[in-house]
Amino acid sequence: MPFSLNKRGEATIQKGVNITKSPIEELEAKGKAAKAASRRMAYLPSEVKNNALRNIASDLLAKKNRILTANQTDYREGETQGMGTAMLDRLMLSTDRLESMAQDVLAVAALPDPVGEVFDMRTLPNGLQLGRKRVPLGVIGAIYESRPNVTIDISALCLKSGNAIILRGGKEAVHSNNALAKVVQEAIARAEVPDGAVQFIENTDRTLVNHLLKMGGIIDLIIPRGGAGLIKFVTENAAMPVVSGGIGVCHTYIDRSADLNKAVAIAFNAKVQRPTVCNALDTLLVHADIAERYLPLVAAEWAKAGVEMHCDERALDILKPQPSLKLVPAIDKDWGKEFLSLAAAIKVVDSLDEALEHIERYGSGHSEAIVTEEYEAAMRFLNEVDAACVYVNASTRFTDGSQFGLGAEVGISTQKLHARGPLGLKELTTYKWIIFGSGQVRP
Amino acid sequence: MPFSLNKRGEATIQKGVNITKSPIEELEAKGKAAKAASRRMAYLPSEVKNNALRNIASDLLAKKNRILTANQTDYREGETQGMGTAMLDRLMLSTDRLESMAQDVLAVAALPDPVGEVFDMRTLPNGLQLGRKRVPLGVIGAIYESRPNVTIDISALCLKSGNAIILRGGKEAVHSNNALAKVVQEAIARAEVPDGAVQFIENTDRTLVNHLLKMGGIIDLIIPRGGAGLIKFVTENAAMPVVSGGIGVCHTYIDRSADLNKAVAIAFNAKVQRPTVCNALDTLLVHADIAERYLPLVAAEWAKAGVEMHCDERALDILKPQPSLKLVPAIDKDWGKEFLSLAAAIKVVDSLDEALEHIERYGSGHSEAIVTEEYEAAMRFLNEVDAACVYVNASTRFTDGSQFGLGAEVGISTQKLHARGPLGLKELTTYKWIIFGSGQVRP
Repeated sequence: MPFSLNKRGEATIQKGVNITKSPIEELEAKGKAAKAASRRMAYLPSEVKNNALRNIASDLLAKKNRILTANQTDYREGETQGMGTAMLDRLMLSTDRLESMAQDVLAVAALPDPVGEVFDMRTLPNGLQLGRKRVPLGVIGAIYESRPNVTIDISALCLKSGNAIILRGGKEAVHSNNALAKVVQEAIARAEVPDGAVQFIENTDRTLVNHLLKMGGIIDLIIPRGGAGLIKFVTENAAMPVVSGGIGVCHTYIDRSADLNKAVAIAFNAKVQRPTVCNALDTLLVHADIAERYLPLVAAEWAKAGVEMHCDERALDILKPQPSLKLVPAIDKDWGKEFLSLAAAIKVVDSLDEALEHIERYGSGHSEAIVTEEYEAAMRFLNEVDAACVYVNASTRFTDGSQFGLGAEVGISTQKLHARGPLGLKELTTYKWIIFGSGQVRP
Repeated sequence: MPFSLNKRGEATIQKGVNITKSPIEELEAKGKAAKAASRRMAYLPSEVKNNALRNIASDLLAKKNRILTANQTDYREGETQGMGTAMLDRLMLSTDRLESMAQDVLAVAALPDPVGEVFDMRTLPNGLQLGRKRVPLGVIGAIYESRPNVTIDISALCLKSGNAIILRGGKEAVHSNNALAKVVQEAIARAEVPDGAVQFIENTDRTLVNHLLKMGGIIDLIIPRGGAGLIKFVTENAAMPVVSGGIGVCHTYIDRSADLNKAVAIAFNAKVQRPTVCNALDTLLVHADIAERYLPLVAAEWAKAGVEMHCDERALDILKPQPSLKLVPAIDKDWGKEFLSLAAAIKVVDSLDEALEHIERYGSGHSEAIVTEEYEAAMRFLNEVDAACVYVNASTRFTDGSQFGLGAEVGISTQKLHARGPLGLKELTTYKWIIFGSGQVRP
């Protein structure tokens, strides 16, 4: 096949009249195709979008051999490159996992369509009728790592919310992601969703990510999904808005009036039920009046689950007599630390005010809880804590799109603008003002 | 007065035990004070905020001598430095202008409080009750130029929406702004609004703006108000979210079925009623079927107002026979140009589709209008145009917070995230999830 460099020094392969594009040109072409598709996506009937989603769900099973073969290639490469067991497990697909992904897609299809809702509609004294109409954001870029199911998850949520999507998955899952993206593209084409609505970037060259992050005129929102490094890189380099979870430093405060049983169950669940996620408990704050009764109870339960406890001096004094506990004296860095493991910091405070100040200083604005039987303490905590999700007498582990009844989520936002907490379908939309006139002019 | 450099090389003036802070330290202290105040502002009763606003309104008149004296200093300096008449007029305050500012503040006091509204509240199957509660954003930074009334406007809107504010006005109005900010600070103190809720940066050194734009942990939102240069600088350098109007390239499309009287009145109003603002008409698109009847009518009206018409070839052919018109052949740069003056581009198109494509390509997502008597054309335009405000049979000049019934506005957003179009009180808020439990843990 003839091979040459074009004027700009890019490699081209001459194959009849086709000239192969450079990776950057290809990326830009994908961006333009997504943008063009997004215009039609904006007013696509729900039924078309739901048919597309149902096609994806059935194709995930009908085409499972193709997907699993691609996944085995990634898996073998991962093994060869010495990928750890946890990572390999996250990478692996199976019939069961594909079935569960298909179920999730059907669940998204069953959700109400967020697009088209008209709200705040009213008639002004001059006869103008105006209101806000919910519309898709446009083109969403997703940059993600490792788990191939994100390809399906995000595609389903973006399709349902009428957005076009540009997917850029990690190198380690490129064959799986590519196979999954093709399944999506074939499935939506049969449903007459506009061509170009789902774009996948096969090329895993890092420079393409940099270029993608500068395509501000094309991409309306970037969603990074992955580790802290990826999120930081995207946030610092994107020319367009980014919605990312950031970190979750979550406190549970046991007030002096707390019900001891609830307080033990809530702290246990918040720390132990899934310690590696952002809504898990990091610091337990305990009112001094209840600490001597409460701490030995929760510590005994935590110890059974293997929780390492980083205690301030007063907590240490109370817990020292229990020989079976994994106690560590807390250091300064333990306050405000996201443990993401079976470890927690414990601090005894003298008042609700001290707890509020601690949360204000060290919290990351994610999820904060109080356990109390006092009405006034509950209301003050709800009013005064500035976080995406503020709980009374419940586990912070509930911060999740499907637990909140949003059906599904693309992430959890700790920023204040646009959307806070779990990001569901509605949070992938914006609105435009629509104005029905009959010849009005401004006096 | 003893004068020395401290360890960090900053000038300090020793005056008893007081050590003067460096400008940067002072700015940071103001930021911290605003942040601290914002926590209490979040749950301040509406009545306290409204009392503060009423105090501001009455003090603007009671303390008018102090304000006008400061304004005269700015005015004289402006004159000395050769400031143009238009700029001087924008700078000037008078008893009338103060009275009108006071009226605006009272109007904000009369608006409903956006804070505290609870919405989407529901009870989940597990008994958790959850919903979203509207809360202030926190600390808002405003960077603005020239018109001193912005000091009062933005202070009033931020106070009403429960936000603390850091004001940084332009050098040319520094005495006026300082006097107005002091009036605000004194007025709100009497109403028991937390100290520190309104901060004013007297020092007009540009490096302080750079520092302000990096205070991402303190300031939740920056609002630039001024020329394109200021907005660009702020957008490119801010470490926190920015809401800015950007430019308004507004099209009015006259469909083949348009009512000629409405079409003339709307285009005239959109271009002439106030040509220097972002929602004024820039390009008139006219369907070929109606162009020969419509264009001479609108052009004659525009000519009376002195509008210069940048016409494409077809429009030029139609209008040439009218000798009294200011006609200019359109150049490429006229499409997508924000004229901000008595000038407009005119293009004849063959179809609604061509008009939609032109708007898609050249519009800035601000305000777009169609004039039509055909239902289907109206609905397609409303559906397919992607802009903050889309009109049928009305002038784009209505894009304005008070025209839309939002009471007041801090600006008009052409971005898609968070808020689109006129930004009123509600758009200066966010929400947090509040969750009332009774001991629930996640299974």
